[in-house]
Amino acid sequence: MKYAAIATWKMSYEGMKICADMLERGENGADAAIAAVSNVEDDPNFHSVGYGGRPDCRGRVFLDGGFMDGNTLHFGSVGSIEGFRSPVRIARSLAKGDANNFLAGQGAEQYARENGFEERDNLIPEMTELYEKEKDRLKALSAYDGHDTVCFCTKDCTDSLYAAVSTSGLFMKKPGRLGDSPVPGAGFYADSKTGCAAATGMGEEIMKGALSFTAVYLMKTGLSAQDAAEKALTDLQNELIERNGYAQAMSLVCLDKEGNYGVSTNVPFTFTYASEKDSPALYEAVNTGGRTMITKIKGEL
Amino acid sequence: MKYAAIATWKMSYEGMKICADMLERGENGADAAIAAVSNVEDDPNFHSVGYGGRPDCRGRVFLDGGFMDGNTLHFGSVGSIEGFRSPVRIARSLAKGDANNFLAGQGAEQYARENGFEERDNLIPEMTELYEKEKDRLKALSAYDGHDTVCFCTKDCTDSLYAAVSTSGLFMKKPGRLGDSPVPGAGFYADSKTGCAAATGMGEEIMKGALSFTAVYLMKTGLSAQDAAEKALTDLQNELIERNGYAQAMSLVCLDKEGNYGVSTNVPFTFTYASEKDSPALYEAVNTGGRTMITKIKGEL
Repeated sequence: MKYAAIATWKMSYEGMKICADMLERGENGADAAIAAVSNVEDDPNFHSVGYGGRPDCRGRVFLDGGFMDGNTLHFGSVGSIEGFRSPVRIARSLAKGDANNFLAGQGAEQYARENGFEERDNLIPEMTELYEKEKDRLKALSAYDGHDTVCFCTKDCTDSLYAAVSTSGLFMKKPGRLGDSPVPGAGFYADSKTGCAAATGMGEEIMKGALSFTAVYLMKTGLSAQDAAEKALTDLQNELIERNGYAQAMSLVCLDKEGNYGVSTNVPFTFTYASEKDSPALYEAVNTGGRTMITKIKGEL
Repeated sequence: MKYAAIATWKMSYEGMKICADMLERGENGADAAIAAVSNVEDDPNFHSVGYGGRPDCRGRVFLDGGFMDGNTLHFGSVGSIEGFRSPVRIARSLAKGDANNFLAGQGAEQYARENGFEERDNLIPEMTELYEKEKDRLKALSAYDGHDTVCFCTKDCTDSLYAAVSTSGLFMKKPGRLGDSPVPGAGFYADSKTGCAAATGMGEEIMKGALSFTAVYLMKTGLSAQDAAEKALTDLQNELIERNGYAQAMSLVCLDKEGNYGVSTNVPFTFTYASEKDSPALYEAVNTGGRTMITKIKGEL
C-alpha cells in the first residue's frame, strides 16, 4: 500500500480524515500524524487529550506526548507539562539531536517556552466542575476513568513509519505522574524496517511490558501485524493476571511496513484506519478469547 | 545458585560486598539491591550518582532512579529530582500500588517530601568547580562525559529477581531531561520467571531499543544471559549505525533466573559480580567483534 494510518479511539476520526488526505497527497507521514494528533489536542470535546483534558489531583491539567521517527529511531517526549497547546509538536521537535530528547515537568515547559511553542490554558470550566464533583471520591476511581490517549501510527509513500501520541493522562493523577505515552517502547515505537505501534489504557500496566516495542519486535520475528498485536497484549495480560490476579485496561494499534494493521485490546475499544485502499473509517474491537473481533461502525462505504 | 548479583562500574564494588553479604544471609534481593545502590548514592567520590553527582546545564544536580520487582512486574521510577538523598529508595516506594508509579520533577519531589524521604543537597564544591570550568564548552562535550549509572540486578534465595538503578544523568543535561534510568524496559527490567537486566551509557540511545527489556525477552526465547546481553546490544548498535552512521555508548548487565550473568558493552566497561560460588569481584569487559571479553581485575581470589 502506498500509505496507511491507524489511530486510537473514536476521537481520532476527524484527525484520520486529515491524516489520510495528507498521505494521499504524498505528504510526509510525520507531518500527517502530527496534524492529526494536534486536531484532537485542540478539540475541547475530548476530555483525555490536550485542551479540555481531565485534571490531576490538584485540579490542573498536565499533558504528556511522544513521537518516534521509524527511519532513524530518534524519538522525542514531553511529560507532565502545563500550559502548552500541543505536547505532540513539542515532542516531535525534541526528536532532533542526540541528547535531551525526553524532558519532563518545568524543564520541558522551559524548553517549550524558549522554542516558541504556543501557550494555552487547557483547563475548561466543564473539567473544573468534574474535578470539584469527583475529587472527594478520588480513591474510589476505577482504573478506566479517563486516560484515553490519542495515538496515530502512519506509513507514508516513502515507506517511512511514524508514531505520535498525546494525552492528559490519568484523571486525578498525582503531581508529576508520567504514564506510558511519553515512554518510548511502552506508549509508542516505530521502526520503518518492521512496523510501528502505539498504546492506550492504564499506562502503568503498559510500561510493565514495553507493549509497543514488543508488538514491533514480534513483527520483526515474522508475525503479522494482527498476530503481533494480539500476542503482545495477551502475553502481558496473562503474566499480570498470573502474578497479581488481574490486568488493567490496555489497547494497542500497529502497522506493519506494508501498511497492514493490527489491533488488540482487553476492553471495548474503538479505532480508525485509512489506507490507499480503505477510506477513513471507524471500527469497534473486542477481545474474544485472545483474538480481536473487529466491526466497522462508520465510514465512507 | 542460591543467590547472585551483578552491578555496573567499579563504583559498585563496595556496594557489591554489602549486597552479597545480605544475600548470603538470606535477605531479600530488593533490600540487598537498594542497600548497594544507596551505598553508591552516598559516596561523594562517584560523580555520576547521588551525592557528588555532576550538575546539569544550570549547575544544579538532578537525579533519576528506578526499581523493578520481578515477581509482580511492579516498578517505581523518579526522574529529575533535586535535593533528596536516595532516588532509588523513593523509586522503590513508588513500586507499590497500581497507579502513579513514575513521577518526575517537582511532583516527584513533593511525593518524596510528603513521604519523609531524607533531603540532601547533592552538589559538592568540586562539582561546582567542574561546572564553572566546563560550562562554556557545553556544546563540545562528547557523549561519554559522565553519565555512568549504578545498576544492581539481584537474585535472592527465594528465586526473586530485582533491578535497581540510580544516576545523576548526563553532565550538562537540559532542565527536566530524563535518561533511560527511570524508564522501565530501557534502563532496567526484571521478571523472576526469566531474568533481570539494567543498562548504563547514553540513555537516549538505550531508550531507542528498550535495551533491558530486550535482553530479558531474549532470555525468555531460550538464549543464555551472555548471549542475550550480546545480541540485545549488538542488534541495537547495528540498527543505529546503519541508520545514523554511529551508535553512542551503551553497556548492559543481566542475570538469568539461575543467577548466571551476561554482560555486553560497546565501550570499555567495568562491572562487579558475586554469587554463592563467587566472592565479590571486579571485572573488565571489552567488545571484540560483538562478543564480550571479560577479565577479572580485582577480588578475593
